[in-house]
Amino acid sequence: MRHLLSTDELSLEEAILVLDTAAQMAATQSREIKKLPTLRGRTVVNLFFEDSTRTRISFETAAKRLSADVINFSAKGSSVSKGESLKDTALTLHAMGADAVVVRHWASGAPHQLAHSGWLGSADNPVAVLNAGDGTHQHPTQALLDAFTIRRHLVGRVGGAGGDGVGRDLAGLKVAVVGDVLHSRVARSNVRLLRTLGAQVTLVAPPTLLPVGVETWPCTTSYDLDETLAHGQPDAVMMLRVQRERMSGGAGAFFPSPLEYSRRYGLDHRRLAMLPAHTVVMHPGPMNRGLEISAEAADSPRSVIVEQVANGVAVRMAALYLLLAGDSSAEGSSI
Amino acid sequence: MRHLLSTDELSLEEAILVLDTAAQMAATQSREIKKLPTLRGRTVVNLFFEDSTRTRISFETAAKRLSADVINFSAKGSSVSKGESLKDTALTLHAMGADAVVVRHWASGAPHQLAHSGWLGSADNPVAVLNAGDGTHQHPTQALLDAFTIRRHLVGRVGGAGGDGVGRDLAGLKVAVVGDVLHSRVARSNVRLLRTLGAQVTLVAPPTLLPVGVETWPCTTSYDLDETLAHGQPDAVMMLRVQRERMSGGAGAFFPSPLEYSRRYGLDHRRLAMLPAHTVVMHPGPMNRGLEISAEAADSPRSVIVEQVANGVAVRMAALYLLLAGDSSAEGSSI
Amino acid sequence: MRHLLSTDELSLEEAILVLDTAAQMAATQSREIKKLPTLRGRTVVNLFFEDSTRTRISFETAAKRLSADVINFSAKGSSVSKGESLKDTALTLHAMGADAVVVRHWASGAPHQLAHSGWLGSADNPVAVLNAGDGTHQHPTQALLDAFTIRRHLVGRVGGAGGDGVGRDLAGLKVAVVGDVLHSRVARSNVRLLRTLGAQVTLVAPPTLLPVGVETWPCTTSYDLDETLAHGQPDAVMMLRVQRERMSGGAGAFFPSPLEYSRRYGLDHRRLAMLPAHTVVMHPGPMNRGLEISAEAADSPRSVIVEQVANGVAVRMAALYLLLAGDSSAEGSSI
Repeated sequence: MRHLLSTDELSLEEAILVLDTAAQMAATQSREIKKLPTLRGRTVVNLFFEDSTRTRISFETAAKRLSADVINFSAKGSSVSKGESLKDTALTLHAMGADAVVVRHWASGAPHQLAHSGWLGSADNPVAVLNAGDGTHQHPTQALLDAFTIRRHLVGRVGGAGGDGVGRDLAGLKVAVVGDVLHSRVARSNVRLLRTLGAQVTLVAPPTLLPVGVETWPCTTSYDLDETLAHGQPDAVMMLRVQRERMSGGAGAFFPSPLEYSRRYGLDHRRLAMLPAHTVVMHPGPMNRGLEISAEAADSPRSVIVEQVANGVAVRMAALYLLLAGDSSAEGSSI
Repeated sequence: MRHLLSTDELSLEEAILVLDTAAQMAATQSREIKKLPTLRGRTVVNLFFEDSTRTRISFETAAKRLSADVINFSAKGSSVSKGESLKDTALTLHAMGADAVVVRHWASGAPHQLAHSGWLGSADNPVAVLNAGDGTHQHPTQALLDAFTIRRHLVGRVGGAGGDGVGRDLAGLKVAVVGDVLHSRVARSNVRLLRTLGAQVTLVAPPTLLPVGVETWPCTTSYDLDETLAHGQPDAVMMLRVQRERMSGGAGAFFPSPLEYSRRYGLDHRRLAMLPAHTVVMHPGPMNRGLEISAEAADSPRSVIVEQVANGVAVRMAALYLLLAGDSSAEGSSI
Repeated sequence: MRHLLSTDELSLEEAILVLDTAAQMAATQSREIKKLPTLRGRTVVNLFFEDSTRTRISFETAAKRLSADVINFSAKGSSVSKGESLKDTALTLHAMGADAVVVRHWASGAPHQLAHSGWLGSADNPVAVLNAGDGTHQHPTQALLDAFTIRRHLVGRVGGAGGDGVGRDLAGLKVAVVGDVLHSRVARSNVRLLRTLGAQVTLVAPPTLLPVGVETWPCTTSYDLDETLAHGQPDAVMMLRVQRERMSGGAGAFFPSPLEYSRRYGLDHRRLAMLPAHTVVMHPGPMNRGLEISAEAADSPRSVIVEQVANGVAVRMAALYLLLAGDSSAEGSSI
């Protein structure tokens, strides 16, 4: 593994490797051996073209737990805002000796470009690029932490081993992903990874918030949340964050009003009661309590939202470890 | 000790423990053993809802001297500004494995809420909360560093041991606190702590800048600085920072003009000359030179303002040490 | 060496010492022994009154590679912006135990004032000040990294040893510095250092972008880039960054239009072809591709722009090492 750019490019074996490694990382954390010497002397740069305090501090925490040095580079107020190209920023970071660049960018594809342009090191000695969210495209560590969380809670119940390219790891599990799929990199990332791991995904959204071409995605779609919860009996319900600024309709897609959205697609007490006893409730955060999820649902015993955050640190430790210190037998592949 | 929220809740024994520990920390610093391994692997989050570079870097320096990892979380531009609740921010920080949260907040009471809500860990395994200033309420590490500074300079001169709940530690010492008491968390914090330690405090301010109910505080008040200095003969004079933005009167309280304020409540050469030879001059910083304090007073040999800054690092090291690594015999109490 | 403020004050011996030490630092980096324990327990403060992400992360990387703790202090939003004086900021940083202060300031002379005011420590125990760029005055680490880069590429070709105050280190080498010299601290710093090291410098700029008094500088000047390149046969061509905001003429100096500037003073394919085969192309970054330098020139095999960035880390490691941990035989001198 050289980069972590997209769940599209992640094979079943690679996904399982990250998840298993994350389980080991989580175990060290719970045993209070918080600081591992693994990446001592390595430098991880957080290159953020968009604000995202949560994701930044999750990666920063993960890197520091592995004893790496962390440099935070917010593109705001930097030479980037004075017109420097992504290319020159990349050349600069490579020259300064960055070992990994965690990149958040408003443009879909920017991390891919960074990884494959040659700007960040030569083919045999590249700087690892980790996509921390690009435009409406991908957010692979989010999908990995979601899969990790589902695995912890639900495997054993269903699933099993397989080796035919579609995993049995989450085989038979049903996951509903609910909300503004159109603008959600979290939804895109999850659909692919969950499918790779063998789960069945249903996207639930108003027709105007489903992307063109969604019928080619490896999942089913629905406009009706009640129907999906009542008859679909999902094992996990993943609520997407609503971007309030899109509600004004400025993004070009018709968006329901907050009240309407909440009534039709919000997870509340009534809908919680429709779910099987074992079903978990997920959200990538930050939540709009009262909009896509009620406070009752967010804080219910079914909610694993706080665990998702904790698992995020473990998954990011695993990704950094595998990219910077791991066995290079998979060299040449890019996850 | 589990948290450091307010000097109101600080017993004499706890206050003395922090001050004695700070003295040990200060000794390591002056012997050039700057880095102690004590908090290696622990994570301290600076959660700042208001800018305060001085306080942030003082805590950051203290934590790093104890080998902790430090994560800076400025609420500006974060998901907090996208509407995330304090609750969800807290749940996130706990999930990421923060061991201590240093919080600065514009709302009085926010650190107390963080500490006692259960959002930051369970009752038997809480994350330590350190109040780095909340609204017009409290700034306990400022009061502790002030007491530490007074102790260094003046104890021996007066004071002694006692065990009846009101200390003899600073017994008999007279401290004048001068300026905008109404809006000052520094004044509130100091009045309580100094009283706990046995000192006598006089607040000096124009009537419009004294809070309602000040007559119930354990101190005396005066409108006349000359009178207090000349006849009160204070051992320490603590000048409060004037918030220039309040001078326009927008805050609702009548505020004198800068010239008027300086003439009546500023510490200048003439007033300096009224003081006993041993009296020290203090200021929490940053100073408005020429407004509440003249350059001459700020830089005079009586001034211990720079020592206050140095003592701030020692006191914060002590607080972090006691909360994260200290003897838990006082467990259950919250200072 | 106590401070690094200006290349004016740097003797030949001191300059060679920094360059030789940087070569050792660069060697450790290429051998993958990235982290040296040298400055463990020391605190380096990045005090930036202007944004400069590149310079800040270069110093931050250098300090962390030497195991120092780094505190970033952006003056924006700090008490500085609330009117605190440079003096009080300095007193604060000294009191907190800073061992070195890396300062970037919009005012020419601010680092000199910090170093020689006594605010940052006593005469026998000062805090080291490193100038990271002040106004239009100096940027000494930039000049040192430029000299380091030229040395690596061109020494052996020309030059030799000498001991008469003007070095032979870069003796006989010809360097053209091209562009907005008037506003460039990089140009000022380079002219002095390159002269100390024995090189011959030609400044190339429109008459309106040369400073008053340039005729007293130890260099020649030209208004004609083609002439300089074709007949001067420089060994290194250093392109200066154009500040686009000055192009509107607001800075008081007449500035050509972008098109005019590019045509007369930009380095492009045609001009590249005029240069001797061994000549290197330099730029301090960030580049305005298409303005002062074409993409073709920036990415040509002659370009050493990326190496300059890498060398910047080595030179800053050397400077921090010499100021904080080095042999104090040169004590009392300030470079």
